[in-house]
Amino acid sequence: MSGTLRLSTLRLLSSRSSVCSPARLTNRCQARTRRLHSSAGHALPRLPFSTVTPEDVDFFKTVLPGRVVTDPDLLESSNVDWLKSVKGSSEVLLRPQTTEEVSQILRFCNSRNLAVNTQGGNTGLVGGSVPVYDEIILSTALMNNVLSFDNISGILTCQSGCVLENLSSYLEEREHVMPLDLGAKGSCHIGGNVATNAGGLRLLRYGSLHGTVLGIEVVLASGQVLDCLATLRKDNTGYDLKQLFIGSEGTLGVITAVSILCPRKPRSVNVVFLGCETFPQLLRTFQLARGMLGEILSAFEFLDAECMRLLNTHLRLLNPISESPFYVLIETSGSDPEHDGAKLHAFLEQAMTSSLVADGTVATEESKIKALWSLRERVTEALTHDGFTYKYDVSLPVEKIYQLVLDMRAHLGDRAKSVVGYGHVGDGNLHLNITSPARDPALLAAIEPFVYQWTSGCQGSVSAEHGLGLKKRNYIYYSKARPAVALMRDIKTMMDPRGILNPYKTLPDDLQ
Amino acid sequence: MSGTLRLSTLRLLSSRSSVCSPARLTNRCQARTRRLHSSAGHALPRLPFSTVTPEDVDFFKTVLPGRVVTDPDLLESSNVDWLKSVKGSSEVLLRPQTTEEVSQILRFCNSRNLAVNTQGGNTGLVGGSVPVYDEIILSTALMNNVLSFDNISGILTCQSGCVLENLSSYLEEREHVMPLDLGAKGSCHIGGNVATNAGGLRLLRYGSLHGTVLGIEVVLASGQVLDCLATLRKDNTGYDLKQLFIGSEGTLGVITAVSILCPRKPRSVNVVFLGCETFPQLLRTFQLARGMLGEILSAFEFLDAECMRLLNTHLRLLNPISESPFYVLIETSGSDPEHDGAKLHAFLEQAMTSSLVADGTVATEESKIKALWSLRERVTEALTHDGFTYKYDVSLPVEKIYQLVLDMRAHLGDRAKSVVGYGHVGDGNLHLNITSPARDPALLAAIEPFVYQWTSGCQGSVSAEHGLGLKKRNYIYYSKARPAVALMRDIKTMMDPRGILNPYKTLPDDLQ
Repeated sequence: MSGTLRLSTLRLLSSRSSVCSPARLTNRCQARTRRLHSSAGHALPRLPFSTVTPEDVDFFKTVLPGRVVTDPDLLESSNVDWLKSVKGSSEVLLRPQTTEEVSQILRFCNSRNLAVNTQGGNTGLVGGSVPVYDEIILSTALMNNVLSFDNISGILTCQSGCVLENLSSYLEEREHVMPLDLGAKGSCHIGGNVATNAGGLRLLRYGSLHGTVLGIEVVLASGQVLDCLATLRKDNTGYDLKQLFIGSEGTLGVITAVSILCPRKPRSVNVVFLGCETFPQLLRTFQLARGMLGEILSAFEFLDAECMRLLNTHLRLLNPISESPFYVLIETSGSDPEHDGAKLHAFLEQAMTSSLVADGTVATEESKIKALWSLRERVTEALTHDGFTYKYDVSLPVEKIYQLVLDMRAHLGDRAKSVVGYGHVGDGNLHLNITSPARDPALLAAIEPFVYQWTSGCQGSVSAEHGLGLKKRNYIYYSKARPAVALMRDIKTMMDPRGILNPYKTLPDDLQ
Repeated sequence: MSGTLRLSTLRLLSSRSSVCSPARLTNRCQARTRRLHSSAGHALPRLPFSTVTPEDVDFFKTVLPGRVVTDPDLLESSNVDWLKSVKGSSEVLLRPQTTEEVSQILRFCNSRNLAVNTQGGNTGLVGGSVPVYDEIILSTALMNNVLSFDNISGILTCQSGCVLENLSSYLEEREHVMPLDLGAKGSCHIGGNVATNAGGLRLLRYGSLHGTVLGIEVVLASGQVLDCLATLRKDNTGYDLKQLFIGSEGTLGVITAVSILCPRKPRSVNVVFLGCETFPQLLRTFQLARGMLGEILSAFEFLDAECMRLLNTHLRLLNPISESPFYVLIETSGSDPEHDGAKLHAFLEQAMTSSLVADGTVATEESKIKALWSLRERVTEALTHDGFTYKYDVSLPVEKIYQLVLDMRAHLGDRAKSVVGYGHVGDGNLHLNITSPARDPALLAAIEPFVYQWTSGCQGSVSAEHGLGLKKRNYIYYSKARPAVALMRDIKTMMDPRGILNPYKTLPDDLQ
């Protein structure tokens, strides 16, 4: 296994000094830190955690017989994130099956001062799901049982390692759907979805996980199990502790099980794919859809012509309608095919006669629906073929989301290969992506902090749904006031005093 | 002003000893504590806060000129809760208009160790919104400005003292509605709604405030302003701090402003009122409604025949249909009157032909809709005329909610005057109410802990939507595990080290 770190993005993070004082490091740690630090550019130095000893591995093997991975080849894929932008050097991966096992692991790691990186499907885009140095990887992959499903209330309870798509299939057979859906559904774990407060494609309709997650079981850094696994729609007995863990990116506890409210499976689903000449027309189309499709509107997504070009070029996906500067994907989900069809027809007629949309196609059968969705869902994949990609996931007042793309294009001129915008119009969430033939520090310096300042100037969020992880942690102040970030640090310190849970993530370096 | 406390419910709370050590009390506090304690039965003794001096009042008058109330007659109504079950003896009521004023007040109170009770519309049912002893009352009544409304996104930002009904009217003119509605809407403040995580009548459709509240501005005990007043649907930059304050009953901070996502006003609203012969039939009617009304179902409420008797007897409200053991109120809200009518018609036909419902009436015009809703909303009022009322608000697996009423009736026999059940079927939320001609300690001893043990045995919540406040604080362990409650206490201690914010509330006596 290579000992080299390729923490490319860290080179470009804030130059704030780390809070890791050399005086606090053991000799062994110092040596390790120097070695890693020298290859990690401006990365935060390794914090003074213990390193895993053979005796530690022996202990893990007694707790998890046959489920302790130390083979470097097998560890390789868990040390690297999906974008291949962050690579850790963990030498141990643990595969617990039960909450009790997770509890034993954490109790031990806390007492030994061993850092732990919890990993679900490892589909995160901000380097939150992989170790940075030699943190122990705690995989939820074998915690994949559905614990219960109540068909009357629609409440599902399951272990945290269930793959989202498997849960969707499980529910589909029971006439329900998951309240969230996202491109990574084939790999991502529900625990990771909850830990990162995943947004995705259905948020417009079913709201955020803060509303749909009803209960969480979590193991704290101390190994204590916190059972907040309620299966009730309403419970006002004290502070709603589970909310703390939703979106905390594994830094406050290890989620071992969740209960979640699942909607009935819609009897009727329609997807339309439309072309708009201008972004203001696209916004008026959104307003029209909100009014005329009302309660059956379940997604309103967009991509620009540049995205379509990349889909054509790199994935050979064909544009099903005539060329337009903007494309819109609208999904409706309802309980009556006839009513839904009538609403959609009336909406489309109005949109056409008002000249809001130039062209469009409608899908009601599943294969065509999937084909249209893939135009939206596979933009991320197309980008990976276009070159080195700088990814931004911002939330803005909806009327401003495309102006950022235009301003960035003008700002960068021909320094970038592609500057593309797509995302969730209904949520005011833009995915801005910029590619270049190879990693380009000068280009990055032109993008950042420009993109963050622009977003902050509109009171936007510099991470709408991807989280902060490792790569965005130091940009938190663009979206959060200092007292708020200080309170986050206080919460972290209270709940994980030794800081063993997913270190280097979420909180900025000045508070690590 | 009477100095007598009528903390009736406290007499019957747990006999756990208070954490207030007499050794920590000043002489003046000791005297005050003895006086109050002697009249408060087993109430928690007054904690060793300072008492308000004339100099303190002078300070408040400089911060809030003309807005410091010390006239006992004017203070009377703010010292007593709506149910007249808890009475404090506060001698000062403050009426700030701005966040900065709240900040100055709390900074001063924290430095002086003065306890503060934040009060909105004072409509709470668990004694959470009034002082217990001489806490300063901080009223949000003058913080009643709408700060902004974005018609495209539906995001409203307002000060915390806005009355819910006023916000509803404001939005109605702008083609939107508040995502929550409740019987107390004419008095309750949005800040209080958020602080208590109010549920109400629209939760089935629009979800809980944890999902719809997008931002909060809050003043911490120290006086520091925490600005989390985002107006974005998505924001994953660090821990979602606002969630901590939703449902914390004013014990962690004073909410000064909120932003909230408001749905479009439905173009079509229908209400049906049905009679069912048995509760299992009522549940099957609910299942049928979920399937056939789908996305337009916005409320599914019930009351039993005993409730109807009280409405007839005490409020002269007439039953619009033939007598039944159970009554159901179903509301639909949608964007197309024709489609909604068709769905409702099909549902009713199916419910009738399946003999699930015995009789029913439909309302589409506003006055009749209001009349039907009043049958559900005014049960609380009817109960106050029936005698002394013991109120329980529990959350249970939906198929079990009425069994508790039946078991309680059998358990109490003729010791109770009325034992009635009503509530939000769609949320698994039962309001169980028991009346007697006068306060009756023997009856109460028969009800509690029976009701809590019964609920706990079904993994239910002993407070679904009312919160814990003063009256239910010691029952938290019936619904929450000890480690969870201990973590709540740690959070409270971290955020309010002197415990000045709404003391004696939410957390149990052993952790106060």
